[in-house]
Amino acid sequence: MKAMVYGGPGKKSWTEVPAPVIRNPSDAIVKVDTTTICGTDLHILKGDVPAVAHGRILGHEGVGTVTEVGASVTSLKPGDRVIISCIKSCGHCVNCKAGLYSHCMGDEGASGIGWVFGHLIDGTQAEFVRVPYAENSLHLLPNGVSDEEAVMLSDILPTGFEIGVQYGRVKPGDTVAVVGAGPVGLAAIATAGLYGAATVIAVDLDANRLAKAREFGATDVVRSDDGDWKGRVMALTDGQGVDVAIEAVGIPATFTMCTEVVRPGGNVANVGVHGKSVELHVESLWIQNINISMGLVNANTTPMLLKLVAQNKLPAEKFATHRFRFDQFMEAYDTFARAAETNALKVVIAA
Amino acid sequence: MKAMVYGGPGKKSWTEVPAPVIRNPSDAIVKVDTTTICGTDLHILKGDVPAVAHGRILGHEGVGTVTEVGASVTSLKPGDRVIISCIKSCGHCVNCKAGLYSHCMGDEGASGIGWVFGHLIDGTQAEFVRVPYAENSLHLLPNGVSDEEAVMLSDILPTGFEIGVQYGRVKPGDTVAVVGAGPVGLAAIATAGLYGAATVIAVDLDANRLAKAREFGATDVVRSDDGDWKGRVMALTDGQGVDVAIEAVGIPATFTMCTEVVRPGGNVANVGVHGKSVELHVESLWIQNINISMGLVNANTTPMLLKLVAQNKLPAEKFATHRFRFDQFMEAYDTFARAAETNALKVVIAA
Amino acid sequence: MKAMVYGGPGKKSWTEVPAPVIRNPSDAIVKVDTTTICGTDLHILKGDVPAVAHGRILGHEGVGTVTEVGASVTSLKPGDRVIISCIKSCGHCVNCKAGLYSHCMGDEGASGIGWVFGHLIDGTQAEFVRVPYAENSLHLLPNGVSDEEAVMLSDILPTGFEIGVQYGRVKPGDTVAVVGAGPVGLAAIATAGLYGAATVIAVDLDANRLAKAREFGATDVVRSDDGDWKGRVMALTDGQGVDVAIEAVGIPATFTMCTEVVRPGGNVANVGVHGKSVELHVESLWIQNINISMGLVNANTTPMLLKLVAQNKLPAEKFATHRFRFDQFMEAYDTFARAAETNALKVVIAA
Amino acid sequence: MKAMVYGGPGKKSWTEVPAPVIRNPSDAIVKVDTTTICGTDLHILKGDVPAVAHGRILGHEGVGTVTEVGASVTSLKPGDRVIISCIKSCGHCVNCKAGLYSHCMGDEGASGIGWVFGHLIDGTQAEFVRVPYAENSLHLLPNGVSDEEAVMLSDILPTGFEIGVQYGRVKPGDTVAVVGAGPVGLAAIATAGLYGAATVIAVDLDANRLAKAREFGATDVVRSDDGDWKGRVMALTDGQGVDVAIEAVGIPATFTMCTEVVRPGGNVANVGVHGKSVELHVESLWIQNINISMGLVNANTTPMLLKLVAQNKLPAEKFATHRFRFDQFMEAYDTFARAAETNALKVVIAA
Repeated sequence: MKAMVYGGPGKKSWTEVPAPVIRNPSDAIVKVDTTTICGTDLHILKGDVPAVAHGRILGHEGVGTVTEVGASVTSLKPGDRVIISCIKSCGHCVNCKAGLYSHCMGDEGASGIGWVFGHLIDGTQAEFVRVPYAENSLHLLPNGVSDEEAVMLSDILPTGFEIGVQYGRVKPGDTVAVVGAGPVGLAAIATAGLYGAATVIAVDLDANRLAKAREFGATDVVRSDDGDWKGRVMALTDGQGVDVAIEAVGIPATFTMCTEVVRPGGNVANVGVHGKSVELHVESLWIQNINISMGLVNANTTPMLLKLVAQNKLPAEKFATHRFRFDQFMEAYDTFARAAETNALKVVIAA
Repeated sequence: MKAMVYGGPGKKSWTEVPAPVIRNPSDAIVKVDTTTICGTDLHILKGDVPAVAHGRILGHEGVGTVTEVGASVTSLKPGDRVIISCIKSCGHCVNCKAGLYSHCMGDEGASGIGWVFGHLIDGTQAEFVRVPYAENSLHLLPNGVSDEEAVMLSDILPTGFEIGVQYGRVKPGDTVAVVGAGPVGLAAIATAGLYGAATVIAVDLDANRLAKAREFGATDVVRSDDGDWKGRVMALTDGQGVDVAIEAVGIPATFTMCTEVVRPGGNVANVGVHGKSVELHVESLWIQNINISMGLVNANTTPMLLKLVAQNKLPAEKFATHRFRFDQFMEAYDTFARAAETNALKVVIAA
Repeated sequence: MKAMVYGGPGKKSWTEVPAPVIRNPSDAIVKVDTTTICGTDLHILKGDVPAVAHGRILGHEGVGTVTEVGASVTSLKPGDRVIISCIKSCGHCVNCKAGLYSHCMGDEGASGIGWVFGHLIDGTQAEFVRVPYAENSLHLLPNGVSDEEAVMLSDILPTGFEIGVQYGRVKPGDTVAVVGAGPVGLAAIATAGLYGAATVIAVDLDANRLAKAREFGATDVVRSDDGDWKGRVMALTDGQGVDVAIEAVGIPATFTMCTEVVRPGGNVANVGVHGKSVELHVESLWIQNINISMGLVNANTTPMLLKLVAQNKLPAEKFATHRFRFDQFMEAYDTFARAAETNALKVVIAA
Repeated sequence: MKAMVYGGPGKKSWTEVPAPVIRNPSDAIVKVDTTTICGTDLHILKGDVPAVAHGRILGHEGVGTVTEVGASVTSLKPGDRVIISCIKSCGHCVNCKAGLYSHCMGDEGASGIGWVFGHLIDGTQAEFVRVPYAENSLHLLPNGVSDEEAVMLSDILPTGFEIGVQYGRVKPGDTVAVVGAGPVGLAAIATAGLYGAATVIAVDLDANRLAKAREFGATDVVRSDDGDWKGRVMALTDGQGVDVAIEAVGIPATFTMCTEVVRPGGNVANVGVHGKSVELHVESLWIQNINISMGLVNANTTPMLLKLVAQNKLPAEKFATHRFRFDQFMEAYDTFARAAETNALKVVIAA
């Protein structure tokens, strides 16, 4: 089969590799119909994630069709259309039982981390993929949900919702600032209403992304290169600051912005993937009764979010800005990597 | 009357000042029977808290007897024995209604902060003190609770419990590490069992404090100057780290220690008062699904804790290590300031 | 002044009475601009609420203008436009501190119940009303919210939200059945989305009310006189039943309906005011892991709901079906009492 | 092998039957070392549980040794000492993912109920038992925990804790009444401290059981045949009633007792298995803001409780009052059935 293979820093190719086979009774093999590219894939290609071995098939998002199941799989069968979750879950370990699938300690990948596709085992940017713990990691796709919508449920919608909105403890009537209006920030914006956020303020440098933010449900937008961005955010609150500040960029400056606009008793929810440490001003923050959360998605809300997508209550169809076929995979990467120029949010690649 | 008056950095005196009078209908005047000194008082004396005006009476902890009440006070009367909470609460503002008394926005002190005694208004290290919002800030003292026990409910017991144990989300069966076994750390240790902590590990440099920690309920103790303190803490867990790490010192090193031993999905509860920023390693922590809380006590659990003290279920009587009379106030400060030598935890000063 | 006075079972009159005066420092006097009638007022008139003394002014909902404040009131002043909450809160008692204003133990009414207007003290169906604990019981009305919208925040919107949606623990993605599409049921329907309900099923006998339910946000409607109403509700779920069943009628039959359609692990939230006991089938329900809640509104979410009304995010303007002036008060009662014929939801009476 | 086989109402025998074999890849076979008898077994023998087929092996509690595992079982191996949970969990269904194992919808038993042993499939009162979903339903037994202690973790300790204490929302400082001091009531009493209950009142007719209740941690006891039992319970509260009332008998009278002593805002947690409906006085309770919970144990806290038993923090060893060998099984049933005379709590039967 063909797959997108990592060849070391800066090297990738859409190339012929052996097709996957069932290894464990709880595995399934899925023919990938639609996949996409995540910012994390770009990090891997830069060599920032040393755990990724040369030769690894990339990708952790996908929608496909089951072609084969292991001996212990009873709730899935060949022909089933499924969403592949970016997080595997053995269902038995102490973390899985607590819903913390992000830190699944099951054998696959043997790392205590739920993210294994395109990281510790071969991923979804391929014609076929082996899915461990298939009954926990695959979700049946109902009629009426398109592949393009469904693939947003592999990672970005649950990430924005769980790590932004739920970890941020958004509650009815809240004012929420989302710093960074890329795909994951937009996912947080789109799902903040599920806990009744009254005001959702998107903060970004990019006017195009702020326009997108309004489409996804932001009630207000603030340019962060505006000299008084902070004053403008505060003016949209009662002067005390926002109830929840969601960091969706992953750099020190945006993390600090969040701690500067959150109100006493409020929450900072870090969604961004960081490469550097940040200076946390506990000398002034200790007395503010704030809470700072962070984490990798558990994807335990995927079935619930899927239900809402099926009811057209979440704008999953708005993320895809560019479309490619598998044989254009290199071009898809190029478009996504130059998002600032191409205005790409998510690029969708179909078989 | 006599009071302990701040005279600018490094200057304090037990001196004659005018007695307080009722200013607002919700005030009460309390004759102070017993008070104590907090580490924060030492910070003020160093000049670290510029909001404290010269001439301010120090102190925010105390037990006393009501001598006069304002026109709107109906649930208190002269002669009532009361605990003075370190936090005032107007009961009307949005923060008070949410239980966030630490950020009470009521008029007194006009600062949006609940801690006003010995800070923005005159405090409790005096023969008499005016207590604003008396019906919210005073708690009737039942028979059978001594002044020495009760004065620990002004600040340290609620601080350890609310900011350490509750903000840290301790739950039944948890392993909790408390870094710093001073008075507030010991208060966290003493109250961790209220949410069923199974293992409570005290970490400190000082062997004397670790011995105290065992008396307050620590199941294990670890010397932090032991080269492998971290390994010893991890060995007391399932290898994944502690469920909750409580910072009760207030320096960067101990904050970082907490982030190093907390398990994926766990909580770091900062209780310490910090003077410097800390370097937060989000580049490795972002994926750990941890939560970092911090804050000033709300003292909304004081009535509940008082009930447990009255039932002898919390070791409030163990905090007081040294006892003084009001005319020995300067000596009391000296003993407390030299805690490393004197082994002082709390020094109690009685009228 | 004129007021609607209860004269014993079956007797009421819009008649001249003495105007109220300030009694306690925390009181305010409010000139009533707009009020409304609640089903509870009809119960009182039938003699079903013996605690209501003859001569009592009726009514617990209202919007008005402050004319005078007591000595301890600092956050309100004459001229302020306010919503009068149906629940008083002293702010000091153990129940108020826990947010359980419905069981305020403050002196007014001296009953351990937060509902005192038109019950234990004179109410809001009058030209003026004395409001105890004014700083807790009055909410400043922002510009842009009409009296007709605002008066729905005195009781029915918080009741539907707190006792239906919050006590029912509605969460994102839930299927919610609301049995009874009268004003309070509609308030639950209108606010279920604040916790992300995906499917909201209105169940009622009355086609007109079901049509209204759709306007308030119901996604599906079921006639309860349909022989297979239960089958139709179940067909709208995954076959397991609804996550939350909200009872908004107050009779045994509708209570039992709720217990019959709730799924294992689900919640029955009773909002209805009952006059008879119900037979609870614990012999089959004990194993279902359901939860049954009930209660009087606390009105602690009124400020939050007001914010959403001001943003046009809740359809408060849709409740008022009939409008009267104070001198038509008897006619207003008549219209409301014959709601089945008049299709009245809320009748609004303005000065 | 030998097993205790149900032969229809009133009929049981310890008799020879075929040994179980692995049927599914996730099964394990466990040699039973220790088992016990539950009140539910007596109900079955009366014919009250028609779902139990003639020929079914009884029993849902046990401790044993793994002798064989299915192909997909990786975390268990022959020779492992294990606790058999009374609840099976497939780990994949929507209920299992929500922690609601009591309503597991996995294939085994095909009933949507987690309790299958001795009910829908053969149980643990046998020399060997087949355990479906073994990795979720078995818990490794650490050294230092005896069989007698461990077998209390199959059902009664998690039932008392989850359905009594957790569903009852016990919180620090609470006053808890437990009506019924049989094994499950005692389990609730023993675990109420895990959420910091301050006062635990045992209510029972039997002086012997009340004496036991004190051993398990009750702070106060009240004889329910005392004419003023209610007055005596109320006297132990602030006059408002208990925060949590736990029903641990299963008859209408005791259910109603719980609703009579619970305070406004409090919780009634039904643990008892009921055979008849109860009259719920919603006409007076609707305004009390109480919550009524009920359910079958999920056994999702068993690993946590096991940890506390291993630390000697729960008195698991106190439940066993009588001990038998497998060949005395009929005598064990007889002793347990006549508990009122024999003072039996749990009878333990070992291989």
